[in-house]
Amino acid sequence: MTNDEIMMLINRSLFASIGYMDEAGRQNIRRVFCVWHKGIGRHLISTNTSSAHVQSLLINKKACLYFSDDETFEGICLYGDVEVNFSREYKKLLWNEGDEKYYPKGIDDEDYCILEFAAESGKFYRYDGKGELSGSDIMEFDREKEFVNGYSEYS
Amino acid sequence: MTNDEIMMLINRSLFASIGYMDEAGRQNIRRVFCVWHKGIGRHLISTNTSSAHVQSLLINKKACLYFSDDETFEGICLYGDVEVNFSREYKKLLWNEGDEKYYPKGIDDEDYCILEFAAESGKFYRYDGKGELSGSDIMEFDREKEFVNGYSEYS
Repeated sequence: MTNDEIMMLINRSLFASIGYMDEAGRQNIRRVFCVWHKGIGRHLISTNTSSAHVQSLLINKKACLYFSDDETFEGICLYGDVEVNFSREYKKLLWNEGDEKYYPKGIDDEDYCILEFAAESGKFYRYDGKGELSGSDIMEFDREKEFVNGYSEYS
Repeated sequence: MTNDEIMMLINRSLFASIGYMDEAGRQNIRRVFCVWHKGIGRHLISTNTSSAHVQSLLINKKACLYFSDDETFEGICLYGDVEVNFSREYKKLLWNEGDEKYYPKGIDDEDYCILEFAAESGKFYRYDGKGELSGSDIMEFDREKEFVNGYSEYS
């Protein structure tokens, strides 16, 4: 897969899967809504601070983020860290009308946080072969990119 | 979610995601074709022995298996172990016409193996709430069940 094809797979996905380790040392997966991307390497996910996966990621930030399309047999697994972010800038950027049903106190609700995933490397899978993505590949491709809602730009 | 609703989610899925740790200690996810189930707790997945995830699971068998439906906002994460199995019984059961394109030597191809995932516990997620599934819940539900192709029974 080319970097552009990987970017397209990420942009047309509404959801991704986070792989992380929980406090019991178990491998864990959580499906998350993930449409804000800064190139291939950085992704923002809004979620409830009190959720089990956020609490686990506060203890162990090593994680992977997986985007896939079961119809085209494409997948990309990114390896990196998750920072639990409370900046108003990110919280405002990802806020959608109606989010009060999840966060009754609005943007400043302390139960509203943004997970920022930053990739160090990756691996892609497709019917026609698999390959590695290095940190410098990602950095090169992402240079001068900004955070955008890839799904809304795509559709 | 009731156990029957969890079973239905599993049966109507063509794919699941395996979460495991690789040799570099990284959290990893791999999307796998997964339609053979023995109740909620046991699942068979055919794959290439030489694949990276099989090699990782031979070293560390702790894993999770995640089934989800993005349209109904349902997810089930099962925690357990993966055994890399070479029994002719399983290999015959999962063999499909045309699989020679993946395993040129047929059923006895040493690059053809079956991952057997056995759950110890689980966690489910749905719009209306989440909950835990204990090992004894799973054992009770799965009693006297046999391996079946849940997807073909469902569709």
